[in-house]
Amino acid sequence: MRTRVKKLFVNAKELDQQVVTLMGWVKTNRAQAQFGFLNINDGTYFDNVQIVYDEKLNNFNEISKYRVGMSVQVIGKVILTPEMKQPLEVHAEEITMLGDCPETYPIQPKRHTREFLRDVAHLRPRTNLFNAVFRIRSVAAMAIHQYFQDNGYLYVHTPLITCADCEGSDQMFKISTLDMKNLPLINGKIDFTKDLFGKQAFITGSGQLHGETFAMAFSDIYTFGPTFRTENSNTKTHANEFWMIEPEMAFCDIHELMDIEEEMLKFVVQYVLNTCPLEIQFCDQFVAKGLKEKLQKLLDSKFTRISHHEVIDILNKANVKWEFLPNYEEDIAKEHEKYITEYFNGPVFITDWPKDIKAYYMKLNADGKTVAAVDLVVPQAGELMGGSQREEDLDKLLSRMKELNINSEEIDWYLDTRRYGGCVHSGFGMGFERLVMYLTGIENIRDAIPFPRTPKNCEF
Amino acid sequence: MRTRVKKLFVNAKELDQQVVTLMGWVKTNRAQAQFGFLNINDGTYFDNVQIVYDEKLNNFNEISKYRVGMSVQVIGKVILTPEMKQPLEVHAEEITMLGDCPETYPIQPKRHTREFLRDVAHLRPRTNLFNAVFRIRSVAAMAIHQYFQDNGYLYVHTPLITCADCEGSDQMFKISTLDMKNLPLINGKIDFTKDLFGKQAFITGSGQLHGETFAMAFSDIYTFGPTFRTENSNTKTHANEFWMIEPEMAFCDIHELMDIEEEMLKFVVQYVLNTCPLEIQFCDQFVAKGLKEKLQKLLDSKFTRISHHEVIDILNKANVKWEFLPNYEEDIAKEHEKYITEYFNGPVFITDWPKDIKAYYMKLNADGKTVAAVDLVVPQAGELMGGSQREEDLDKLLSRMKELNINSEEIDWYLDTRRYGGCVHSGFGMGFERLVMYLTGIENIRDAIPFPRTPKNCEF
Repeated sequence: MRTRVKKLFVNAKELDQQVVTLMGWVKTNRAQAQFGFLNINDGTYFDNVQIVYDEKLNNFNEISKYRVGMSVQVIGKVILTPEMKQPLEVHAEEITMLGDCPETYPIQPKRHTREFLRDVAHLRPRTNLFNAVFRIRSVAAMAIHQYFQDNGYLYVHTPLITCADCEGSDQMFKISTLDMKNLPLINGKIDFTKDLFGKQAFITGSGQLHGETFAMAFSDIYTFGPTFRTENSNTKTHANEFWMIEPEMAFCDIHELMDIEEEMLKFVVQYVLNTCPLEIQFCDQFVAKGLKEKLQKLLDSKFTRISHHEVIDILNKANVKWEFLPNYEEDIAKEHEKYITEYFNGPVFITDWPKDIKAYYMKLNADGKTVAAVDLVVPQAGELMGGSQREEDLDKLLSRMKELNINSEEIDWYLDTRRYGGCVHSGFGMGFERLVMYLTGIENIRDAIPFPRTPKNCEF
Repeated sequence: MRTRVKKLFVNAKELDQQVVTLMGWVKTNRAQAQFGFLNINDGTYFDNVQIVYDEKLNNFNEISKYRVGMSVQVIGKVILTPEMKQPLEVHAEEITMLGDCPETYPIQPKRHTREFLRDVAHLRPRTNLFNAVFRIRSVAAMAIHQYFQDNGYLYVHTPLITCADCEGSDQMFKISTLDMKNLPLINGKIDFTKDLFGKQAFITGSGQLHGETFAMAFSDIYTFGPTFRTENSNTKTHANEFWMIEPEMAFCDIHELMDIEEEMLKFVVQYVLNTCPLEIQFCDQFVAKGLKEKLQKLLDSKFTRISHHEVIDILNKANVKWEFLPNYEEDIAKEHEKYITEYFNGPVFITDWPKDIKAYYMKLNADGKTVAAVDLVVPQAGELMGGSQREEDLDKLLSRMKELNINSEEIDWYLDTRRYGGCVHSGFGMGFERLVMYLTGIENIRDAIPFPRTPKNCEF
């Protein structure tokens, strides 16, 4: 049985002087005349294991030439080295090559640009940087499940395929099983009755409406799944496929919503700090200086809660020449978000937005002008979550849909949540890559997701 | 602050004689002349809370008329009732209606057929049956994450959008942002350079190939996400959108693969039995008699491991008139799976399948005829997982792809896993709905997923 590298480090004391079998990939090889050092890793732990080998091994000359990227098996004795930089090393008794690797291997122990690494997205997880980023991503995903399940939430798998066009088909991918080269026509139009679902189908961009129907049964639910946008925009923060979390809570108003968002984010940050100390340390050192301090600070901070109107007041009073003038009727720009998080020196909930720039399902406030929406903006990353109390009044909801020309018939089932035992309820959405970028300091969404899909870019 | 129903039951002793505020939906209301019983639930717990109300409440007459499905707030004193069937009741001091519900509410406290409930899929989670099924589904999902994360696996989000046509575009949904009513043409063909990714795109049916590239960096990885099939087949076990788990392990042969599958399944079953005793009890009573015993038995059993060849031997010797004759060169039928699990009285791993009926990436055995594939079949549910050791030899892999006319250029990146430090590795896939059906006894996949998508059926 092989010992995983993680176990070797975690159970180092118990394994001292024991002979173990390791399997992994060569990270570096420094060979001298009578001995050498092979650094290997199997990816289960951030740090490599140092293997010491010497000329007593009958294939010493071969081992001396082992190249980076090869897979090897090492049988050797664990020796604790408390006086050294690394806590242990393994003195090899036998080293065997399992899989060769040519000199042309693209991932060499040197600095590669992130642009280059995107071109070898299938190999980049073998670098320290992406080992750290994708481990943090995995652990953060687990933290999210842990938080919601510990608090009794139901994980709902809402459907991605939809035939309701209410989001506007321009914003959704169309999906089809029809032969695109030979589309069936009827009266000059595509005959979608021949398609798998008997009508035109799309990939939806949100599970919120379905989530709400489950919140009306289980009180507290969340979704966590892939999401699609057709935006043709090439920025550091846009991808056409990404993952999103959408919790929805019955009997919950906007104030409790903010409590939950704050508690969840702190839980996730604490969980990642506890579980990935080496990875965070690496990102702090090589990706975003001060990362660890930023995350620690978040844990101790009380998030500010302030209305959109008050934010505009502050921006207007600021002695700053804005590129975009602050406006009580409009969204705030990135420069405003940045100013506000610096002004309050921490995360800020911005509430009560002008209704005209927000979605139809948000609860209309008593002023008739604003809705009970809330965006969480955080230092550096900007908007991290967007949520609202939902309009539970069927008549108000219908009249808002009418104003915005939204076909209510297609989602009549959704309106049943207001007809049958409706209640005050709230929910939010969090883009998972945005969170990963916040947790790692990575600045481009293409480096926060394993195989990014962006306009004109769908490789691998 | 409201007390959730789950907390009320779990912390009953501490809450005895305390006044609590509950919010939930009316499940039943039995009103008498001077008092009445209101059963409510907020969906956080399987059992309802019995609220006792009497004529001292000034809105007693109104409450007496409260209808099923209304949402209500109850303030009342918790009274433990160890002598009764239910462990506690709440003596109401105040009951308020939060949201009305008309008499036409489709979910009444009576038996509804599952077919009817599929037509109100947005309301069916409010029934006992779907409360149990979807809670078990959520808990099983968590159990899967827990198992893999506890064992150091990396959770990878593999992409759903792909431009590689290697699966055969007939088996995949095509996706597009083009205007289907006005497709851009070039030389009489659709001009996909105008599409978002600059070429034709699909939704993939598996994350395995991407998963393998991550296993070559992290050793142990898993995916867990939605999966799509275009099959036009209306059966109890087919859906066009479902969730799948695909673990992939480096330095792992087919024997270790089976160890992992067995350990994982037992972990998930134990986790669900521990976490959902009431839901399992309900399913045992109303969905599949003997369910609990079946699951308990699985925990104590050692899974049989037997080759496909030996299975055919057993089937041939059996004194059964088969609909499909057992054949050494072919797949086994449902009737065979059933016989074999009954023969061994438990789960069976069937290994070493004829290469011609299995996928190109499976490891060719020394006999040159079979591959190191393994299917796990379990009593009642049939095939639950399918996996294999992967062909790590690049030349053998390429020649197998050539035989099957698979374009290797489109997935050249995948072949790098064999070029750069390749190693023995294995993986499997498990359909999550199949698992949910096994855990609940539910017989139709349409009842194991919140909003099923099947041919001609894409409502909600």
